[in-house]
Amino acid sequence: MKINANDLSTMEQRYRATLINSLAGVRQVALVGTQSPDGVNNLAIFNSLIHIGANPPLYGLLFRPATVRRDTLTNIFETGSYTINFPSSRYFMQSHQTSAKYGEQESEFDEVGLTAAHEPNVHAPFVKEAIVKMAMKYEEKVDISINGTIMIIGSIQMICLPDRMVSEDGYVGHDLGDTLACAGLDAYYRVSEIGRLSYARPGQWSEPVERTSVKA
Amino acid sequence: MKINANDLSTMEQRYRATLINSLAGVRQVALVGTQSPDGVNNLAIFNSLIHIGANPPLYGLLFRPATVRRDTLTNIFETGSYTINFPSSRYFMQSHQTSAKYGEQESEFDEVGLTAAHEPNVHAPFVKEAIVKMAMKYEEKVDISINGTIMIIGSIQMICLPDRMVSEDGYVGHDLGDTLACAGLDAYYRVSEIGRLSYARPGQWSEPVERTSVKA
Repeated sequence: MKINANDLSTMEQRYRATLINSLAGVRQVALVGTQSPDGVNNLAIFNSLIHIGANPPLYGLLFRPATVRRDTLTNIFETGSYTINFPSSRYFMQSHQTSAKYGEQESEFDEVGLTAAHEPNVHAPFVKEAIVKMAMKYEEKVDISINGTIMIIGSIQMICLPDRMVSEDGYVGHDLGDTLACAGLDAYYRVSEIGRLSYARPGQWSEPVERTSVKA
Repeated sequence: MKINANDLSTMEQRYRATLINSLAGVRQVALVGTQSPDGVNNLAIFNSLIHIGANPPLYGLLFRPATVRRDTLTNIFETGSYTINFPSSRYFMQSHQTSAKYGEQESEFDEVGLTAAHEPNVHAPFVKEAIVKMAMKYEEKVDISINGTIMIIGSIQMICLPDRMVSEDGYVGHDLGDTLACAGLDAYYRVSEIGRLSYARPGQWSEPVERTSVKA
């Protein structure tokens, strides 16, 4: 199938949105937890988590102008605090359900049956059931002028994950946690590791990297 | 395992880079093809493809300040043209090998054993072996001031993929093309679909969406 620019511009709108969203590929599901200044917990699903840098450790999240993530964005601006939670694949229905348009005073945690967990010095709630949990601090807002999209960049303040997912060199094996991935707005995926390869150098093929024993 | 901000800032640098890169999760492997004004083909692997919008169809790619993607970036600025190619999982070694530091006058296509394919009106080369191919036009450069990272946004000019990957509603099934995913800088993954879910609404669980027959 070959689709050119003219096909794209005249395409039925919903078909195009589904095509372009899902074509971008498989991505990690991130459940983003926030709390409003008056104490309402909010939970929203994102498929736009992006690694910005390791030192300092920075991740980005994209907020599209047309989406209904306003509670999350407002809470991040007002409190500076949010959490990123990776659910395992068995929570794919609850994760998807957080995308329903609940009222501002309703907590998605209660509505979808996930548990808000709190940590000292972190305003935003974590997802107790998530296999990986991170506390984030809001750092920078980046405006993408071409379509009004906003990227929110935050620094990682705390990471909580099972020892068995982390190799001796720091590598996190997502298959070991069965973390949930997705494509587009409604398709959910499992991942399995093919392998790791050694640092690539000209003139020779990389070697497979053996799984190291995890940290005790 | 619980890692706090102080642990992160005092962590051994390579361990931290591996941890923070791989922790960000599984992402699509994008091979980005460009051609210099004097005709040298370039191919580079990216794990930072991000969906920016569907109308117009826009994807972003992140260029970190410390990486060696200068050829790709220079070629995009000078020609305005690049391609995004998704390899299937059996090309994971060739894909990884494009990250080796070849000289400016060497083509990664030749060095790793992939074939440059050209289309009329597209300056940049495609990867003939790739299962999904896209022609991109450079649109906007976004500076991320916190760490000097650059996001390049382009509009999709052409998409070429097998009919069997596309459902009637436009959804692209990545397991149907066995497209390659990765985590961090050296780990490669296969993906398998759990299922699609209907649009989420408050007060009811979404229904599974059946696989529709693909377009003839």
